[in-house]
Amino acid sequence: MLSANELQLRIFRLQEMLSEKGVHAALLLMPVDIYYFTGTRQNAALWIPADGQPILLVRKSLSRAREESPIADIRPFPSSKEISAILGQEHATVGMTFDAVPVQQHAYYSKVLPGRSFVDISMIVRELRSVKSPYEVGQIRNSAAKLSSVFAEVPQFLKAGMRELDLASEMEFRLRRIGHEGYVRMRAFNQELFGGMAVSSGATSYGFFDGAVTGKGLSSASPQGASLDEIRMNEPILVDFAGVFNGYISDMTRMFVIGSLDPELERAFDVALEIQEAVRVAMVPGAICEDIYQQAASMAGEAGIGGNFMGMPGEQSRFVGHGVGLELDELPVLAQGFSMPLMAGHVVAVEPKFVLPGKGVIGIENTFVVTEHGGERLSDLPDAIVSI
Amino acid sequence: MLSANELQLRIFRLQEMLSEKGVHAALLLMPVDIYYFTGTRQNAALWIPADGQPILLVRKSLSRAREESPIADIRPFPSSKEISAILGQEHATVGMTFDAVPVQQHAYYSKVLPGRSFVDISMIVRELRSVKSPYEVGQIRNSAAKLSSVFAEVPQFLKAGMRELDLASEMEFRLRRIGHEGYVRMRAFNQELFGGMAVSSGATSYGFFDGAVTGKGLSSASPQGASLDEIRMNEPILVDFAGVFNGYISDMTRMFVIGSLDPELERAFDVALEIQEAVRVAMVPGAICEDIYQQAASMAGEAGIGGNFMGMPGEQSRFVGHGVGLELDELPVLAQGFSMPLMAGHVVAVEPKFVLPGKGVIGIENTFVVTEHGGERLSDLPDAIVSI
Repeated sequence: MLSANELQLRIFRLQEMLSEKGVHAALLLMPVDIYYFTGTRQNAALWIPADGQPILLVRKSLSRAREESPIADIRPFPSSKEISAILGQEHATVGMTFDAVPVQQHAYYSKVLPGRSFVDISMIVRELRSVKSPYEVGQIRNSAAKLSSVFAEVPQFLKAGMRELDLASEMEFRLRRIGHEGYVRMRAFNQELFGGMAVSSGATSYGFFDGAVTGKGLSSASPQGASLDEIRMNEPILVDFAGVFNGYISDMTRMFVIGSLDPELERAFDVALEIQEAVRVAMVPGAICEDIYQQAASMAGEAGIGGNFMGMPGEQSRFVGHGVGLELDELPVLAQGFSMPLMAGHVVAVEPKFVLPGKGVIGIENTFVVTEHGGERLSDLPDAIVSI
Repeated sequence: MLSANELQLRIFRLQEMLSEKGVHAALLLMPVDIYYFTGTRQNAALWIPADGQPILLVRKSLSRAREESPIADIRPFPSSKEISAILGQEHATVGMTFDAVPVQQHAYYSKVLPGRSFVDISMIVRELRSVKSPYEVGQIRNSAAKLSSVFAEVPQFLKAGMRELDLASEMEFRLRRIGHEGYVRMRAFNQELFGGMAVSSGATSYGFFDGAVTGKGLSSASPQGASLDEIRMNEPILVDFAGVFNGYISDMTRMFVIGSLDPELERAFDVALEIQEAVRVAMVPGAICEDIYQQAASMAGEAGIGGNFMGMPGEQSRFVGHGVGLELDELPVLAQGFSMPLMAGHVVAVEPKFVLPGKGVIGIENTFVVTEHGGERLSDLPDAIVSI
């Protein structure tokens, strides 16, 4: 359970940011945002005035909300007629997270809260959530330790001739048994992910996923992750999974091979490690996200494999790292176009990868927290390609 | 791969419905809707004019979209300045699915498509998708057959003393190995589900999930499904999983017990079977959804357990069945307040369940298709409680 102090600090920081922007109250509807500020994940609406006490209005389950959350004012969801009076009518400007809230919800609250003007506070909420407290860094470190323990078992079950799906199932099974919570939350409305991917020959399939690797998947309805392709000798096998423990996500990738790899892949892997280390060193407060991406892309270019960095030629993603926390796609993003500076407590999965058509995918991924001394690694397992 | 004929028919039916409602074009953004009409699930926008040819604008991956979809006009996503001219300016009224599309997306398209008025076509798209073609019924039957084959294996691995999580992991592992695609799509913006649930003593925990049973889950961040509680002798064990194969979802629940059950639970189970059969018989075209729910609730009331129907007393859900297809929460819903009539080809998971505080959860679930002769069952496995 989240401590009342931790929650109070989160609410206080939001109130400060609302006040700075001249927003009188936040109306939060996304379950993950509500969990962040209350410690309970219910079907609910959370009202946080810039100046005053939060009110949690719960559709389902009121009893569980009251058991789990230290918020003092938790009520059953009111009727449409009552809600305006309950929240108070002195708040002219109300913030909602327009990045994720559907149009119908916005329309409903516009109707039942007449006279307020609604503004987008997606970036406020996402920026606030991107800076992790010591408690949260501890949670992500714990998540990474559990995830690492299963990665360490791969040599026990990886065999030539098994399908990508068999390898993925073994990872998923072991992760679940040690408490992986299963569902991996993503915020972007057109993204979805099931756990991760274990891919070899299907790895170079391109797809919708905002990453270097999508995987072939099992059908055109679910075109992502492991496929029915067999894992063969001397092919790069990329295992990329998200850990989800007590809500907190860690993300890592390791490479495996049964036999040995093409020297070009090995060389690209070395470049990926060099990029990872350069990014790690650069991860200090004040560093600009896109500068770090540009540095990584330049290193790939200097190594002669710039066209293979972060995706198939023509299908490249323009990033090298993404924030993780309660969602897989949090801020900051080490990407082209992101001019925000890093802050101490940002947690980023750094994942330089290369796609070499005809040869496969190679790369590394670890989760780091930004500190004054550069990125501190939270996923503690050797990076080297594991040869079986 | 979806046949061009199947897709053509879907597009034609949408165009008819748009014309009837005076909507000049649909702009579809939800990946699952785009898949339904194109046969490819990409990060894209799909334009379907009431009168004319569809255009698929693809952010990622253009190559995969072209490989998978028979749609003739597939293009890279245009710049903000080009999009209005590409789609044509003669469409004054444009439909979007306001139930699922975020406010930011709506704002973006309002800006780049000036002069159009945007209207909500959520119900048009959901109603259209709710009526399954013979191909789709075949897909759901296949999904249910695979799901049933794993339910049939439960006696091989269910043991007293294992945790709910161990039972769930075994189900998930076996389902994955036969091709379960993992991610279970839900449309409602505040719902989420990981696969299903295997619950015994944790079953009576209440929670956010729009169902009779939520499960305790592993933490307050993921308060749903299996917990770390041990499965004990003589307790009802409820196993409720969704199958996802080639995108299509089937849904079923079976009861297990190691030893024997309290006679009150057995009696409630018999009532659940009677309700299931009454609902099945009532599932003919023209029957009104909420009438069927009311009939089910009355039967529970007459048996003296109306207060335990579909949830803990005080936490009851007011439904007895939900549509399934590419999403777990499709139309129709056999629920209070749903006055729509059933149509031939509607596919519904019927799930009468009872929560008896202090004793546990008991019930049944099968997936049926509406026909002139009542519901035809797609999940072919005996209903009886399996005693081990």
